[in-house]
Amino acid sequence: MVTYAAAISLDGFTAGPEQSLENPIGVGGGRLHDWIKELTIWREAHGEEGGIVSPSSVVLENAGANVGAYVMGRNMFGGGRGPWAEDEPWNGWWGDNPPFHLPVFVVTHHARPPLECEGGTTFTFVTDGVERAIAQALEAAGGKDVAINGGSTVARQAFAAGLLDEIRLDLVPVLLGAGVRLFDGDIPAELEQIGVVEGRGVTHLAYRVSGR
Amino acid sequence: MVTYAAAISLDGFTAGPEQSLENPIGVGGGRLHDWIKELTIWREAHGEEGGIVSPSSVVLENAGANVGAYVMGRNMFGGGRGPWAEDEPWNGWWGDNPPFHLPVFVVTHHARPPLECEGGTTFTFVTDGVERAIAQALEAAGGKDVAINGGSTVARQAFAAGLLDEIRLDLVPVLLGAGVRLFDGDIPAELEQIGVVEGRGVTHLAYRVSGR
Repeated sequence: MVTYAAAISLDGFTAGPEQSLENPIGVGGGRLHDWIKELTIWREAHGEEGGIVSPSSVVLENAGANVGAYVMGRNMFGGGRGPWAEDEPWNGWWGDNPPFHLPVFVVTHHARPPLECEGGTTFTFVTDGVERAIAQALEAAGGKDVAINGGSTVARQAFAAGLLDEIRLDLVPVLLGAGVRLFDGDIPAELEQIGVVEGRGVTHLAYRVSGR
Repeated sequence: MVTYAAAISLDGFTAGPEQSLENPIGVGGGRLHDWIKELTIWREAHGEEGGIVSPSSVVLENAGANVGAYVMGRNMFGGGRGPWAEDEPWNGWWGDNPPFHLPVFVVTHHARPPLECEGGTTFTFVTDGVERAIAQALEAAGGKDVAINGGSTVARQAFAAGLLDEIRLDLVPVLLGAGVRLFDGDIPAELEQIGVVEGRGVTHLAYRVSGR
């Protein structure tokens, strides 16, 4: 199964305006992630102490439970530099021990050798499109789920190609006013609501996707 | 307290495209209301039998419990004819016994004498703007709530004028692709999530509004 998870503002944006490689989340977009940063489960995965346990903790735990590989766009891997040289030492945003601990396939225009990190995360850079990245990820996942994370470009392409099976949205009560829309224009899909969880300052929504 | 309630598609529309006086809900917009038409509480209020009881029934009951007056736009009152003549016999969409049973203030450009219907519904036509309609409704409500219903034009004006205290959205897992957006552009408000209820094919979300 291929899933997409994203935090989204009540007015429909997964990132604020003036998005750039240096600030891929855009102006105000950081507010979409306030709810997750207060969770103990998130803080532990990112080497931070403290935090709280809430219904969102269970959602986050379940979301990761059956994932065998990730697909993300270049912005989520880490912008700010590029095109990458072969001797580029930088590991994106994620430091030496990224919190994935699984194969990650990065959709990008810039070829680069695979990057093995501590803790079992390997980044593979895919230059021939989203469909190919998902196919590689499904193979690497060995029967487990492939999770598409981060910005909506990759997800929109997967959605349009009919490759998404589930969408999981963290709906945040923020109005960004502008930015990157998750749903923009006609998307040939029917959705079935399969789960709703009320968190603190967030609502977790899960939808099954089928063709129209 | 002034509240706004609306059904909204997952991609942010309160009505589909090609909205007109004859079809104020736009193409596909009727799907936003499928969930409510299966409820016994809605069917009884509209003179129909049968239906089901679900968590949405409680939401609907609570929503109406403390309402003392309604404000709506002309489209929700009923389009299709106009400008209205003084001898215009038509009561909008609602027939002889509209389901409001309270004072209703209709924001319109077309002056018309008040319309008293069976069952306690009176339509008053307000031609000097949303703020004035809300002020009249608050007075008529005698300490109870004023509920803004229907399309988003009136709600957006009330929102922009800082006159909304609560927003209650019925989030429907439908992608309309185009139509009338509830949240369009910069809206100077902060929202606090105060209630989430999972219904059948709908999620009920309540937010408290404060100034930014």
